[in-house]
Amino acid sequence: MVFILDPNVEQEKIDAFIHGWEQKGFSTILSVGTEHTAVCLIGNTATVDLDHVVQTSGIVSYGKRITEQYKAVNRSVREDSSIIRVGGVSIGEGTFTVISGPCSVESSEQILEIAKTVKKSGAKILRGGAFKPRTSPYSFQGKGAEGLEMLRMAKKETGLPIVSEIMNQTQIDLFADVDIVQIGARNMQNFDLLKAVGGLKKPILLKRGLASSIEELLMSAEYIVAAGNDQVILCERGIRTFETMTRNTLDLSAVALLKQKSHLPVIADPSHASGIRSLVAPLAKAIMAVGADGLMVETHNNPAQALCDGAQSLDLEQFRSLMEELKERATIERKEI
Amino acid sequence: MVFILDPNVEQEKIDAFIHGWEQKGFSTILSVGTEHTAVCLIGNTATVDLDHVVQTSGIVSYGKRITEQYKAVNRSVREDSSIIRVGGVSIGEGTFTVISGPCSVESSEQILEIAKTVKKSGAKILRGGAFKPRTSPYSFQGKGAEGLEMLRMAKKETGLPIVSEIMNQTQIDLFADVDIVQIGARNMQNFDLLKAVGGLKKPILLKRGLASSIEELLMSAEYIVAAGNDQVILCERGIRTFETMTRNTLDLSAVALLKQKSHLPVIADPSHASGIRSLVAPLAKAIMAVGADGLMVETHNNPAQALCDGAQSLDLEQFRSLMEELKERATIERKEI
Amino acid sequence: MVFILDPNVEQEKIDAFIHGWEQKGFSTILSVGTEHTAVCLIGNTATVDLDHVVQTSGIVSYGKRITEQYKAVNRSVREDSSIIRVGGVSIGEGTFTVISGPCSVESSEQILEIAKTVKKSGAKILRGGAFKPRTSPYSFQGKGAEGLEMLRMAKKETGLPIVSEIMNQTQIDLFADVDIVQIGARNMQNFDLLKAVGGLKKPILLKRGLASSIEELLMSAEYIVAAGNDQVILCERGIRTFETMTRNTLDLSAVALLKQKSHLPVIADPSHASGIRSLVAPLAKAIMAVGADGLMVETHNNPAQALCDGAQSLDLEQFRSLMEELKERATIERKEI
Amino acid sequence: MVFILDPNVEQEKIDAFIHGWEQKGFSTILSVGTEHTAVCLIGNTATVDLDHVVQTSGIVSYGKRITEQYKAVNRSVREDSSIIRVGGVSIGEGTFTVISGPCSVESSEQILEIAKTVKKSGAKILRGGAFKPRTSPYSFQGKGAEGLEMLRMAKKETGLPIVSEIMNQTQIDLFADVDIVQIGARNMQNFDLLKAVGGLKKPILLKRGLASSIEELLMSAEYIVAAGNDQVILCERGIRTFETMTRNTLDLSAVALLKQKSHLPVIADPSHASGIRSLVAPLAKAIMAVGADGLMVETHNNPAQALCDGAQSLDLEQFRSLMEELKERATIERKEI
Repeated sequence: MVFILDPNVEQEKIDAFIHGWEQKGFSTILSVGTEHTAVCLIGNTATVDLDHVVQTSGIVSYGKRITEQYKAVNRSVREDSSIIRVGGVSIGEGTFTVISGPCSVESSEQILEIAKTVKKSGAKILRGGAFKPRTSPYSFQGKGAEGLEMLRMAKKETGLPIVSEIMNQTQIDLFADVDIVQIGARNMQNFDLLKAVGGLKKPILLKRGLASSIEELLMSAEYIVAAGNDQVILCERGIRTFETMTRNTLDLSAVALLKQKSHLPVIADPSHASGIRSLVAPLAKAIMAVGADGLMVETHNNPAQALCDGAQSLDLEQFRSLMEELKERATIERKEI
Repeated sequence: MVFILDPNVEQEKIDAFIHGWEQKGFSTILSVGTEHTAVCLIGNTATVDLDHVVQTSGIVSYGKRITEQYKAVNRSVREDSSIIRVGGVSIGEGTFTVISGPCSVESSEQILEIAKTVKKSGAKILRGGAFKPRTSPYSFQGKGAEGLEMLRMAKKETGLPIVSEIMNQTQIDLFADVDIVQIGARNMQNFDLLKAVGGLKKPILLKRGLASSIEELLMSAEYIVAAGNDQVILCERGIRTFETMTRNTLDLSAVALLKQKSHLPVIADPSHASGIRSLVAPLAKAIMAVGADGLMVETHNNPAQALCDGAQSLDLEQFRSLMEELKERATIERKEI
Repeated sequence: MVFILDPNVEQEKIDAFIHGWEQKGFSTILSVGTEHTAVCLIGNTATVDLDHVVQTSGIVSYGKRITEQYKAVNRSVREDSSIIRVGGVSIGEGTFTVISGPCSVESSEQILEIAKTVKKSGAKILRGGAFKPRTSPYSFQGKGAEGLEMLRMAKKETGLPIVSEIMNQTQIDLFADVDIVQIGARNMQNFDLLKAVGGLKKPILLKRGLASSIEELLMSAEYIVAAGNDQVILCERGIRTFETMTRNTLDLSAVALLKQKSHLPVIADPSHASGIRSLVAPLAKAIMAVGADGLMVETHNNPAQALCDGAQSLDLEQFRSLMEELKERATIERKEI
Repeated sequence: MVFILDPNVEQEKIDAFIHGWEQKGFSTILSVGTEHTAVCLIGNTATVDLDHVVQTSGIVSYGKRITEQYKAVNRSVREDSSIIRVGGVSIGEGTFTVISGPCSVESSEQILEIAKTVKKSGAKILRGGAFKPRTSPYSFQGKGAEGLEMLRMAKKETGLPIVSEIMNQTQIDLFADVDIVQIGARNMQNFDLLKAVGGLKKPILLKRGLASSIEELLMSAEYIVAAGNDQVILCERGIRTFETMTRNTLDLSAVALLKQKSHLPVIADPSHASGIRSLVAPLAKAIMAVGADGLMVETHNNPAQALCDGAQSLDLEQFRSLMEELKERATIERKEI
C-alpha cells in the first residue's frame, strides 16, 4: 500500500504518520520524489481501510494498494520517474547517459587514455573493472584495489564520475571514492550484499542476473531500497537462452517493461549481452529507441590486446562513431545525451 | 563454395559452367542478384582448387569457400542485399516495410475496415490469418478458405498485397492469390513444407521457431532456396526463454546478426514476441533502429472483441500513432517507409 | 466435464446420452477404458448442473469438472491407465516396453541384423527412420519409401512390430504396414498432421517438441484423441535449454508429471535427449525408475559408420548389456519387461 | 597437466617435485586420493615435455594433458572417485547418502523431531536452513545464528552430522560447528565466497546455479579445490528452463556426466528441482538409478505449516516410505544406504 502525500507537508507530520504505522507493526519506506513524497506500507495491509486513512490523516492526497510484490520500486509510488544525480550527471527520464570504459582497468595509461577519449566523444561516466568475477580461478582476476586507485586518478584528471563492480560487502570501504557501485549479474541475488549497499548514500547499478526474471530484478532492487538507499539504476545485460551464436540474449522487452513497472532508471549493456563487437552499435541504437535511460558500453584503446573481453569491446574510434549516431537520434527521442 | 561471375556473362556460358559441375557430381544453386550473379557449389568441395577455377573458367570474377553450413543464403553470395518485390512494394535494404492486419480474418467488414485504415496510416502489406495454428483443438481455428477469400477481396479493394500463413503443402493451391506465403514458427522445421514452397514463384515469409537457433533459421531458408525459390524473408518473432512476464523474448541481436550473415531481408514481429500491447510501439522502434528491413504488427478494429490475440493487437488509432513515430525515425535511419 | 458411466450400460443408452448433448451444442468424446467407459463433454459446461445429470441420466456413475484445458487425455477420465496393444505387445502400466533400432534404416542387411539382435536382447518393438527430418537440406534425408519396405521385411522376419516417423499427412498411405506412427519433435505442433493421424486406427507415438511445455504436449495429444484416435503414446526426448554439453536436457520430472496428469502411456528417449552414448545407459535406468512405461533407444550394428546420429547409438553388445541391467531392475519396479 | 605419482613416494620427494615446478612459475595442486597421489600443474604447460618428466623425475608413474579448463577436479586426476568422510558418514562411490531435514529450522522442537525421525528412517545427515536466501526482502529470512544453534543441539542429540547454507564469507566463524557448509545455487559464482570456503578443512556442498552450465559448476568446484580444500560435493538441483509446471528442470544427464568428468561425489535435490511433493519420490528413485552418490530431500513434521517451501516437503511418513523404496533398490545398484 502506498500513500501519496499532499505537497509541502511538514516533516514533523510525516514523521508522526510513519511513527503511527510502525506502532501498529508495519514497516514503512519513505520515498521522496521530485514532485511528491510517498510512504510505502509493508506488512499485512489487508485490514487497512485505505479510504479512511486518506480522509482522516490530514496529509494524504491519495492511496493505492500495490498488488505486485515489489512495493517501493513500483511505478505506483512515483508517477514521475526517479532521476539519479551523480557528479553533475543525471540518469533517468529525459536523458540518455552513456557509461563507457574498459572491461578491466589494466594500467594508469590505459584507463587515462580511454577516459579522456570517451569523454571527448560524449560519455558521461567512466566504467572500469577492478575486481573481476571470472569463471576460472586461473583467469586474470583484475587489478583489485590498485585498479580502483587508477580509476580514481582517471576521475580526477577528467572529472568523469566512475562506476566499478563490488564483489562482496567486505569491500565497501574500498569503494569510498567510487561514485556508482555496480552489483554484477552473478551477485544480483546476493541478498546480503544488496542489504549492505542499501546502507550506502550513493547510486547502485544493479545488473540483471543471467537467469533472473524481470520480477526478480525488481525484487532485488527492492532489497536495496528497503534497506534505505533508493538510488538504484537497473541494467539489462542479456539473459541465458539456448541461442549460442551470441553470448547472451539481450532482452529489450524487459527494458520497456521495467520502465512501465518501476520508476527507477533503466539502462542496458550491449557489450556483455552480445559478446560480439559488430552487434554493439545496432543494439545500442535499439536500446535508445526502446526507451532506455542510458547505455553501458565497453571500450578499449587496443581491443586485440585486452586482458578481458576484447572481442566485444569497441575501439575508441568505433565508440566515437557510435556516439555520433546516438546523438543524431537523441533529438528525435527527446533525450539529452 | 561460391563463384561470383563476371558482369554480363551470357546465359549459355553460365549454363555450361553449371553443367560442368553437375557432371562432376556437385549440386549447384544459381543466385541472380541485382549487381552480380553467383553460383553456389554444394557437395564435397574440399578437392576443388578454387584459384584454378577462377583462372581457367573465363567467367568467374572471384570465388570463396563458405565455411558455414548455409550456402545459398550466405552473405558471401551477395554482398548487395537481396531486395524482394511484390505488387509494387520492395522489401530489403533501404526500405522499412510495415505489414499489418489482424491475427485472424473474422469477417469481410472487419478485414476491409482494417485494410483501408492501416493503408492510410502507411502499411504496405496486409496480413491476416485464415488457417490458425492453435495449441488447443477446441480454440477457434480460423475461417479457412473463406478467410483467404475475404483477404483477396480486401486486396482487390485496397491494392495492398496480402500475406497469410500456410499450414501444410496440400493447401498450396488455395494460396494462389496470396502474394506472400507465411511459414509459421511451429512449421519452421517442417522440411517437406519448406521444399514445397521452394517450388513456388512468390515470396515466402519464414518465421523463426520458438526454440530455433539463428543457424537453424538460416538452414530452413536454405531449404527453400535450394528447392528453387530465393525470395525468402526472415522474421524474428521471439524465442522461448524462462521469462514469463512476456509471451516470448524478442531477440534483436538475431536481427542484427542475420543481416550480417545473410543477404536475405529480415523483419521482426513485436506483437507475437511480447504478447503485450504496451510493448509493441517501443519494440517496433527498436526493430527499426537495430537495422531490420520491416515490421509485422497486429492490428484490430476492436481488440477487446478479437477472436484471437486481442491482448497484443494495436487498435487502429494506436497503429496510426506508431506509424507517425516510425516515419519520423525513418529519415535518420536512411530507410524509405 | 467428464461422466464416468455405470458398468455394462447398453450401447444404445450411451448413444442416446451422447446424442442428447450434441443436440445441445456440445462436442463429446467417448473414452472406453478397460475398467469403465467415460464421456467427455467439450464446450461451455459452466451452465451444466453436474449433480442433476448424475441423478437423472440413469447411466452415469459420477461426474467431474475438468479444469485443465486437456480433457480426453486427462487422468480424470480414466483412473486406470490406458494400455495400448500392438502386435501382441502391451504399452502402459505394468510393463516396460523397449523400442530399439537405428536412427535411419540404411539397408536390408543392416535393419535385419539389428532387428534380430535387439529382439534377442529383449526389445519388443523395432524403430527405424525412413524419412528423416534434417536441419540441413544437404544432409542424408533417409531412404524414404524404400526404407519403410526394408522395415516391413524386418518385421516379417522377426515378428517385431515397427515404428517409424511420418513427415506429413500425404504420406499416410505409405505407412499402412507401420504398426506405430511416430510424430517427431519438430511436428508436435503440426496440427493438421495431428488431426490426420487422429483418423487412423493405430497407435501414435507423439514426441515432445524441443521447446514445448508439458501442457502443450498434452494438448497435442488431445488433438489426436479429439479426432477419434485414443491410442497415443507420449514420449519425452529432451528439451532445449542453455546447457550445451548435452544435446538436449532430458526432463524426467515431465515423465512423472505426465503419468499423474494423464492416463496415456509415457516413454522416454535417452539417445536423442543426450546425444552421448555413455549417458544412454544411466539415463535408461533413471527412466525406468521414474516410472516410465518404456524406452526408445537407438542402436546400430556399426555406430562409427552410421549415416545419422552415430555418436549417440549403442552398439548391439552395449544394448544387450543395458537390457540385462533393465531386466534386473524391472522386478523391483513391478514392471514386466 | 597432471602427474600420477608412484605409490608410496616419500613426502620429501613430493615436496621437492612441487617446489621445482613452482620455481618455474607454475602453480600446483596436490591431490591425495585413496589409491594414488597426483600433482596438477597449472599454467602454460604447452612447453612442458610430458614424457621427459615421466622418465626423469623418478617419482611419476605417468602423466596426462588435461584439455578441459577444470584441472584439479578432473576425472583424470583420480580414477578412483573421491570419498568424503564426515562424522562417520561416507559420501561417494559405493554409498548412497541421504541428507534430509526442513527447508528452514523453525524451532528446537521442530528440528529435533525431524532429526530423530529421519535418522530412524535412514537419513545419514541432517539439513536445515538458518540463513535463507529469499527473493523478497519481506519474506521470512531464517532464524540466523539461533537456527544454527538449534541445528547444533539436534546434532548433539542424534549424532547426525549437519549441513547448512552459508550466505557470505563474514559468517564463516558462525559455521564452526556445521559439518558440511552449503553454497547455495545463487552463490555458485560468488567467487570470493568460494575462495573463502576453500580455506576450510571441512566438506563443502556446492549447488549448481539455476543458469549455470555443467562446466561452470566444475569451474566453481575448481575455485574451492585450488584454494586448498578438495572436499567438495557437487549437487544438481534443477536448472531454469521455459517449463513452468515444475519449479525448475532437474537435469539428470548432468549427474551422469559429472560422474564421468570429475572424481568428486555428486548428489541431487529433487525437492527444489521440482517444487512439487508428488514428484519427489519418483525423482529420488531416478537419482539413485542414474548413478548419484546421494540425495538431499526436504522433510517437515508439518508441511502445511512450514515457514518456507511447504509444498515441496515430504512429511515424515512419506520420507520413511521413500527410504524403504530406496533401500530396496540400493542392493541392485551396489550402493550402501
